[in-house]
Amino acid sequence: MNIDKERSFSEWYTEITKSAELCDIRYNVKGFVVFLPWSVITMKIMYNEYERELEKRGHLPAWFPALIPEGNLKRESEHVEAFVPEVFWVTGAGETRFEERLAMRPTSETAMYNMYSLWIRGLKDLPLKLYQSCQVWRHETKATRPFIRSREFYWIEAHDAFAKKEEAEEQVREDMEMAENVVHKRFCIPFLFFQRPEWDKFPGAVHTFAADTLMPDGRVIQQPSTHLLGQNFAKAFDIAFLDEKGEREYVWQTCYGPAISRIYASLISIHGDKKGLILPFLLAPLQVMIVPILKKEGEKDVLEKCKKMKEELEKAGIRVGIDFGEETPGFKFNKWEEKGVPIRVEVGKKEVESGEVTLHRRDAGKRESITDGEAAKRIYALGEEIDKSLGERADEWFSKQIHNAETIDELGKWLKEGGFTKVNFCSMEMDGEECAEKIKEQFAGNVRGRLFGKEEKPEKGAKCIVCGKEAGEVVYVARQY
Amino acid sequence: MNIDKERSFSEWYTEITKSAELCDIRYNVKGFVVFLPWSVITMKIMYNEYERELEKRGHLPAWFPALIPEGNLKRESEHVEAFVPEVFWVTGAGETRFEERLAMRPTSETAMYNMYSLWIRGLKDLPLKLYQSCQVWRHETKATRPFIRSREFYWIEAHDAFAKKEEAEEQVREDMEMAENVVHKRFCIPFLFFQRPEWDKFPGAVHTFAADTLMPDGRVIQQPSTHLLGQNFAKAFDIAFLDEKGEREYVWQTCYGPAISRIYASLISIHGDKKGLILPFLLAPLQVMIVPILKKEGEKDVLEKCKKMKEELEKAGIRVGIDFGEETPGFKFNKWEEKGVPIRVEVGKKEVESGEVTLHRRDAGKRESITDGEAAKRIYALGEEIDKSLGERADEWFSKQIHNAETIDELGKWLKEGGFTKVNFCSMEMDGEECAEKIKEQFAGNVRGRLFGKEEKPEKGAKCIVCGKEAGEVVYVARQY
Repeated sequence: MNIDKERSFSEWYTEITKSAELCDIRYNVKGFVVFLPWSVITMKIMYNEYERELEKRGHLPAWFPALIPEGNLKRESEHVEAFVPEVFWVTGAGETRFEERLAMRPTSETAMYNMYSLWIRGLKDLPLKLYQSCQVWRHETKATRPFIRSREFYWIEAHDAFAKKEEAEEQVREDMEMAENVVHKRFCIPFLFFQRPEWDKFPGAVHTFAADTLMPDGRVIQQPSTHLLGQNFAKAFDIAFLDEKGEREYVWQTCYGPAISRIYASLISIHGDKKGLILPFLLAPLQVMIVPILKKEGEKDVLEKCKKMKEELEKAGIRVGIDFGEETPGFKFNKWEEKGVPIRVEVGKKEVESGEVTLHRRDAGKRESITDGEAAKRIYALGEEIDKSLGERADEWFSKQIHNAETIDELGKWLKEGGFTKVNFCSMEMDGEECAEKIKEQFAGNVRGRLFGKEEKPEKGAKCIVCGKEAGEVVYVARQY
Repeated sequence: MNIDKERSFSEWYTEITKSAELCDIRYNVKGFVVFLPWSVITMKIMYNEYERELEKRGHLPAWFPALIPEGNLKRESEHVEAFVPEVFWVTGAGETRFEERLAMRPTSETAMYNMYSLWIRGLKDLPLKLYQSCQVWRHETKATRPFIRSREFYWIEAHDAFAKKEEAEEQVREDMEMAENVVHKRFCIPFLFFQRPEWDKFPGAVHTFAADTLMPDGRVIQQPSTHLLGQNFAKAFDIAFLDEKGEREYVWQTCYGPAISRIYASLISIHGDKKGLILPFLLAPLQVMIVPILKKEGEKDVLEKCKKMKEELEKAGIRVGIDFGEETPGFKFNKWEEKGVPIRVEVGKKEVESGEVTLHRRDAGKRESITDGEAAKRIYALGEEIDKSLGERADEWFSKQIHNAETIDELGKWLKEGGFTKVNFCSMEMDGEECAEKIKEQFAGNVRGRLFGKEEKPEKGAKCIVCGKEAGEVVYVARQY
């Protein structure tokens, strides 16, 4: 393909999901797509990386049912209001009609916390830190887009319960650290963590903290979010324990949700270029593609060397393929570049004679020759370089997408350009919602919240960019997916 | 626990799922259970092992939607008849009522093959070999039992399409080989592969081949099954390609389904003993549990040594824990033996002084002392020995469970004892069903089919054990789960 990602991102995205065979949107249920091997293999590695990080931090995996009785779903009042309108309802099976409808989980609080209330009795049962990797289903009314927003998506959800408020708060910070370690450091996706305004919290949460990254068109897309649930669900589901003094106390809870399929959307969009995908070495389904350059003479030797090279790299634990297709080398180069394979190994007559192979880096477009025996070692080193350089490039680009606006017109101008715009804003409490609504109506911009971890307060006397009242916050505004 | 597995298997099973914390049956949707970390970690490893084997044989992972339009489900007539009565129906979302009901997948043929018909055009698209790891939902009317039979279960399904009938037949054999490599060799579960009689085939299949193992009470439980679908679904879903001569031909298909949660049920039942679980080293969530033997004197040194040992073993890639609990060593020994941890490391004052540790094997109940530095190496070696010995023990037990009956009374007697009973039988075609029904009514026995891979034909003149007509087959009969 040859589409300018920055100028025509929407077209680029539609084309790449098709031409790199990431998904098929022709499945005959609206809003549901089929995920094809090239994306699934990468998402499976992403799952694996995230799960390892969660387990390192004391989380254990569990599997809760996909179906939730309507009664459970309705026990926390904010939660029911938000999710019931988009829940898929199971009303019966075979010829049987159920007395109570069952919801396909839109998220698992109400499936899990019923059990938590059975399991948690005393201090010895705390903290309880479980995660599950699963799909959730939401009947989105907004337009769906594969990986970005669909009615079925793939995620991880971690649900933790603690004896003390401070432990829950600490968990929220740990959740952010995990996002930093996995999404930023390993997947090379830059983001900022925001505390969301009151009107944009997870339903049932006390505070919501969410990471936002940007698509090449400058619109934000949410990455992992973590929620301080306080004791809201604990009270609704009666999750309590006896403390040191023998008094019955409600637990403090957090939940955390990295949406793997949505992170994948950012991954391919941020790193790709006009030729197609550029996948990090860590995440590529095939890290190396060997392309034989065949001429009539010496064909057998070339093929022989390709196969030997594949065996050698496989033995070193590298995911590697050979393209034995009938097409020309040029066609194959393009094909695997479009699919984002990080390193190409070219083997022709020349390489057979010199005892070398030619390596080509997808991200930098550079070639180098190395001696046969050194291939595996060099490829691992190159892989690290590639991921480092993808990360740096993304960080650099991302850091330039943060603007400042002093007036509402300036804000409008920046929102059209894309990226985040910092503005003085009246309040993140519910009384600020009206101003946020005005920004949305006028410029399709969304108040993403206050930056977490760095105190950014308006100067003395500063006014809200919308209502002109005293500004209590510096917030980031952006158009969103 | 202390329950005789052979005598009181049902009680043993109920108790172990609870006391080893494998699942919780108190979830408030009937037939659905919560799978707890101790079983989930093992099932995740099982998934991983099976997926690697499938990928080694050219299968790629894909993710298809959980919901299937009623229309898809009804395109293959035998399939619809079998599955529609037990399908969970989604009839709407939020306030929207769907025009066409959606089924929660009971199995994915009808989700996948619609897409296969879009993807397959010519020989270059074949073979197509995809698998997905997912849950399926069936509203079972029979009594449910965690892991053995529930309304939600965890499995892998592989769906392959070929240009030639012979390739499909070869795939069926390969599917059996994979079961041998994974379920038998790695999970240490013995089984026999049977060709199922006509009346017990997978709905829509030409032939069904299924592995059966036995529970300690002598009842069979099905392991992976593979189905030669022929061109039945290809015709129903119009999956065709242009062959070498440019003629449009239907593909030949197979599907394959290892039910991970059910294999887990066999795993724990076959290897366990009266004290609880015995898990293979390969599959144990914790392969080693370090138990400190504390006396007042030298407590610090013991704890220090435990921690160092843990680090050392972790570094070697061993899954290891330390039990720092307040309980006595004896209590801890029992607890981790009940949970089936393959190797216990005991560290006390004696071990600190001698520079050794004491290893204890869960399966054999034997202790040995080894020098500190050799722990990791010795544990890996022990792990191999344990799995080998579990496999041999299971094989030996299994090989004794095959009986012969000459008369219907003998069959009845053996069925009561448990295990397989070989009998002369009229026919595996539909006209044999009546005799099979009689066996079921009289003795609750099921005709499992004809042994695959070893020609077992009745002697000349032999009669069907039920109807007395000429016997065309030697079949295996057993009570089933």
